[in-house]
Amino acid sequence: MKIKNLPENTLHRLVIYLNVLESMERKKIESISSEDLARRCGVNPAQLRKDLSYVGNLGTKGVGYSVKSLKFSLKKFLGRTEEWNLVLGGLSPLGEFLLNNRDIQKEGFYFMAAFDTREENIGKVINGVSIYNLDQISYVTKAIRVDMAIITSEDKPEEYLEAFLSQKIKAILNLTSTPLFTEDQDIKIENFSFPMALTKLSFFLKNSR
Amino acid sequence: MKIKNLPENTLHRLVIYLNVLESMERKKIESISSEDLARRCGVNPAQLRKDLSYVGNLGTKGVGYSVKSLKFSLKKFLGRTEEWNLVLGGLSPLGEFLLNNRDIQKEGFYFMAAFDTREENIGKVINGVSIYNLDQISYVTKAIRVDMAIITSEDKPEEYLEAFLSQKIKAILNLTSTPLFTEDQDIKIENFSFPMALTKLSFFLKNSR
Repeated sequence: MKIKNLPENTLHRLVIYLNVLESMERKKIESISSEDLARRCGVNPAQLRKDLSYVGNLGTKGVGYSVKSLKFSLKKFLGRTEEWNLVLGGLSPLGEFLLNNRDIQKEGFYFMAAFDTREENIGKVINGVSIYNLDQISYVTKAIRVDMAIITSEDKPEEYLEAFLSQKIKAILNLTSTPLFTEDQDIKIENFSFPMALTKLSFFLKNSR
Repeated sequence: MKIKNLPENTLHRLVIYLNVLESMERKKIESISSEDLARRCGVNPAQLRKDLSYVGNLGTKGVGYSVKSLKFSLKKFLGRTEEWNLVLGGLSPLGEFLLNNRDIQKEGFYFMAAFDTREENIGKVINGVSIYNLDQISYVTKAIRVDMAIITSEDKPEEYLEAFLSQKIKAILNLTSTPLFTEDQDIKIENFSFPMALTKLSFFLKNSR
């Protein structure tokens, strides 16, 4: 199987494993058995081993995994040893929060520019990031390499999507309440909103009475 | 099949359908064919019809779906016609952002209290929500019905999880960089972080060169 066709659920679990390993490294844990790691990741050991076989780090029999080495293998596999340039679409409260937040930057994702359509926001600088008018996007993408975009405009998410796709931006995180899709297999859109996540919980609670 | 055992992917798609329908309703669209709705939701029509068969709203042949009626069926199925009481764990920047944000409240999720462990934060009131010391949690849950908790403390997410589970809170949204799990099938934990979502995009970009 081509890595590109990795099932979405496997990818999701690999991202979880990476985060669990990073949290273990912060706690100075150096090695871990696959049973223990699986338990901390909410999967069974067979599933964990199968997923990690894609990554090619199989641990050492009887010793288990080196936390540092497995973390590095996963980071590399997931493209997280590289740095990625982001742009933001829409200076909503969430957009402004993300620009001011340093956690994303610490992980190697850098905001290079932000776009809005409201005149009063154009030209502002937030945490070092300039706000441009969305209709200036082609000038910005000529000057800066842009890898990914985050859409946070509740007013017109589709307009931002269209503008980003017109600039050949191929990876989009949509955080608005309107899910966005494209049929183009060369483009990846991730949809997330807080109410979406809470709705999975409300479904669970409603059915567990 | 019991509704409780609905596959995670089906649940995810039903939540997407609800959000797409809500966005169509805001645009005053009254009815839609299953083909058109499927396209807007990024699935094929057969998948859409299969998923909606769980919900029991099958539309009218030749007419398609009434946006309003299908939206209501989905809301009901997903437990979103009810109101849910939330507590927050950890007054991180994201925690504070969520307390100040009215979008979650508009969707029927209400913050009733927030918890922190740092003395200087206890007793504060943010957007009408009081911050209590985490060790006072049992007093708070005696006075207020709590349905769900959101964990946003990067320092000690496990400590908040333990406290919430000790109070029989069964639905948790964990927004920290440390994924959290439990083996207890009566408890549901959703894990999300911005870097997690961006990592799915970095994997995609790395493998599409």
